[in-house]
Amino acid sequence: MSRLDSAIRRLAAQRDCLGMAAELIGDMPGPILELGLGNGRTYDHLRTLFPGREIFVFDRHVAAHPDCIPDDTHMIIGDVMQTLGSALDRIGARAAMVHSDIGSGDKPESRRRARALTRLLGPLLVPGAIAVSDQDMAIAGWPEVALPEGIAPGRYYVYRVP
Amino acid sequence: MSRLDSAIRRLAAQRDCLGMAAELIGDMPGPILELGLGNGRTYDHLRTLFPGREIFVFDRHVAAHPDCIPDDTHMIIGDVMQTLGSALDRIGARAAMVHSDIGSGDKPESRRRARALTRLLGPLLVPGAIAVSDQDMAIAGWPEVALPEGIAPGRYYVYRVP
Repeated sequence: MSRLDSAIRRLAAQRDCLGMAAELIGDMPGPILELGLGNGRTYDHLRTLFPGREIFVFDRHVAAHPDCIPDDTHMIIGDVMQTLGSALDRIGARAAMVHSDIGSGDKPESRRRARALTRLLGPLLVPGAIAVSDQDMAIAGWPEVALPEGIAPGRYYVYRVP
Repeated sequence: MSRLDSAIRRLAAQRDCLGMAAELIGDMPGPILELGLGNGRTYDHLRTLFPGREIFVFDRHVAAHPDCIPDDTHMIIGDVMQTLGSALDRIGARAAMVHSDIGSGDKPESRRRARALTRLLGPLLVPGAIAVSDQDMAIAGWPEVALPEGIAPGRYYVYRVP
């Protein structure tokens, strides 16, 4: 499969998993966490999916389209491994959904970061929250949710936090 | 439409238009021109679509995945407005297909560049060649080819060079 095919499938999987997450959390209270702003594409999508919720975005730096940058209250700049540890004060309540899109070309490093993330995320999520991730987070022991139709296993991951 | 939805549709349109171009040129002789290497995703796709053809890529600089970078003979570095003018010597024969993905966030500038490009491209293409573009190239006077099913008009452009 070419990198173009792969990119299309990855983005479509992301869109479909986030859409499913929105249905799954329904009106469960809590903000949304987005790990990785990137060019702001997914943040923009989250705004349309969760118009009534606060969305907090974590990234090392801000390099997004100017119209896809959260305000200062909702943009938490720094290494997510550092900033998540004290994020509960900042976000004010446990989150109903987290989307983690932190994978890089360095696969072993991406896996290491995902494993470390799960430990930091647990205390930030309400029971029943949905975690959507581009990386395997099985180490957290959260039950996996079946992926939307047409998404190959391992392309994206969805968990329901107990 | 969110930027995520928009990106998925743009990439899928690109893939579908390139697939159609491959069918349209069939075994017409000539290399392939790719204007804009970017991260190398589309170049990688062109390699799978046109395994028997030379593919020449033009870009200002090389910032692609290491495994998606053409060899020195096929990577022409510089402003495409400068390098295309003398490209025929380099590519050795008129091209059967050109894909131009030069649009940036600056829409008026993207349109200006596309108009300038069409003048440079004409002499580089064989009669019957296919031009696939992310920008309107109507100014060239080339007949438009109907887009593959499901692609909204204006999302991508395909022309048959007379």
